[in-house]
Amino acid sequence: MRQRPVNLMDNPHADRVKRVAQLAGRSAVRNRRQQFLAEGPQSATEAIRAHLGFLKLSEPAQQMWPVGETVAEVYYTQRLIISHPDLFALVQQLPAHVFVAETSDQVLQAMSDAVVHQGIVAVVNMPPHSLQPSPGAELVAGIVRVQDPGNVGTIIRVADASGADYALATAGTVDIYNPKAVRSTAGSLFHLPVYTRVELGTFVASFQGRIFAADGYGTRVLDQTDSGMLNGPTAWLFGNEGQGLNDDELRLADQRVAVPLYGLAESLNVATAATICLYSSAMAQRRQDPSTS
Amino acid sequence: MRQRPVNLMDNPHADRVKRVAQLAGRSAVRNRRQQFLAEGPQSATEAIRAHLGFLKLSEPAQQMWPVGETVAEVYYTQRLIISHPDLFALVQQLPAHVFVAETSDQVLQAMSDAVVHQGIVAVVNMPPHSLQPSPGAELVAGIVRVQDPGNVGTIIRVADASGADYALATAGTVDIYNPKAVRSTAGSLFHLPVYTRVELGTFVASFQGRIFAADGYGTRVLDQTDSGMLNGPTAWLFGNEGQGLNDDELRLADQRVAVPLYGLAESLNVATAATICLYSSAMAQRRQDPSTS
Repeated sequence: MRQRPVNLMDNPHADRVKRVAQLAGRSAVRNRRQQFLAEGPQSATEAIRAHLGFLKLSEPAQQMWPVGETVAEVYYTQRLIISHPDLFALVQQLPAHVFVAETSDQVLQAMSDAVVHQGIVAVVNMPPHSLQPSPGAELVAGIVRVQDPGNVGTIIRVADASGADYALATAGTVDIYNPKAVRSTAGSLFHLPVYTRVELGTFVASFQGRIFAADGYGTRVLDQTDSGMLNGPTAWLFGNEGQGLNDDELRLADQRVAVPLYGLAESLNVATAATICLYSSAMAQRRQDPSTS
Repeated sequence: MRQRPVNLMDNPHADRVKRVAQLAGRSAVRNRRQQFLAEGPQSATEAIRAHLGFLKLSEPAQQMWPVGETVAEVYYTQRLIISHPDLFALVQQLPAHVFVAETSDQVLQAMSDAVVHQGIVAVVNMPPHSLQPSPGAELVAGIVRVQDPGNVGTIIRVADASGADYALATAGTVDIYNPKAVRSTAGSLFHLPVYTRVELGTFVASFQGRIFAADGYGTRVLDQTDSGMLNGPTAWLFGNEGQGLNDDELRLADQRVAVPLYGLAESLNVATAATICLYSSAMAQRRQDPSTS
């Protein structure tokens, strides 16, 4: 579909290289340019598949990652041709309006946030922050002021795996387009809508279902939760690593639910707690409705 | 119980400082000296509580972390006295045969593996590798050639939280006494026995219960697993990040069990899969036996 591009990029100090590298830095740059980086084969593959219309996305996810408009630029090193031939074949199918270039190792390293670059970097168009969650959904992962990019990425990946309709991140959450967060999603960022800058009160008021706060001090223990409770439309709220959910946030929830701790551990990492909560809901919802199993 | 020690350490190049710092490096050094580092308040607190006999450990865990013999040395900066007074109080209760010293920031940073030191480092005596798992247990986390220290640490933390009797790591697994692995356990390393260099075939032959291999290609899906199956004594095997469990390892299992993927995600991180498997077992075991709930 496209000619193999010439290797036009050998200079890690070229303006174009610097511009890409800036997207790995501060969120202000990403927000101003409305672009971010999908680094490495997993993330780049899913971004490109979204661009090509190869993913079976829900309609809201298609709005986030529109066919033909998701990927702006792709850079890769020659090694990718041998190490990931499938991905290289996808790159070759990108239409001509996407800028594609083979670069030297040095140039790709200069563009990459990773300690060792992984052979490919895609510049991706950021979905507008104005896209906001719909009130009708079976399962939602609410990320509330979580600070660690790895935790945010892991929660998005688990939201995808558990079949959540979407994830949302409140203002005060670390930028989900931070390169480490994107990498931690392992491509799941492009599989479901992830709404940003969500105002929690507005969301809760409109959501048609139960709001559960994952809270270590919750008196309701997940274990004892009857499946009738887990079975309906549910939005989970997962709070900040250090402080959890604050009082205002807890008050927005219908129920505070604790993951049981059977051993001597005093707490769980927020991504681990989210895993247990989201999968418990996903499994309970499917047990009740044999048509989807 | 002990005099507040003099601040004897201001020189980051002192021999003693170098010796401690070496324990953050290669596993060969740790194995030769049979010591490792517990860095940061969470890990150091639990190591010291084990030493003081303040943890309610099972008998096999007491063998790993004997009262009066767990901690060899403790170093902290003055800031810890204000930032973590409870921990400082524990440090002061350590008997005189434990070497305790207040150090400068520079010295603690030189000893630490972390990018920014967290105010305390304990030198801990490594349990003998000759300690090996007992055949009788309700729930076991088997870590099989997992390479990422963060994943290994997270699995140990989840094993603790889910009430597993013990965890085990086969030869070929990353050193569980690697500083990053220890940190990722968030203190759980000192809560349950974690056996090392376990020969998988020997363990499986002696274990009195079912062996389940967590395997993305398993035909049995966790969701559909009847609670009768999950209810009995169970050892889970979790494999290498890239390749999973190999054919020889899979053959040792009674059942290959897949965590269901409801969305578009193609796989789960091994620590995420372990979380779902261990908690599914823990909850099923408790549902069947009302006496423990």
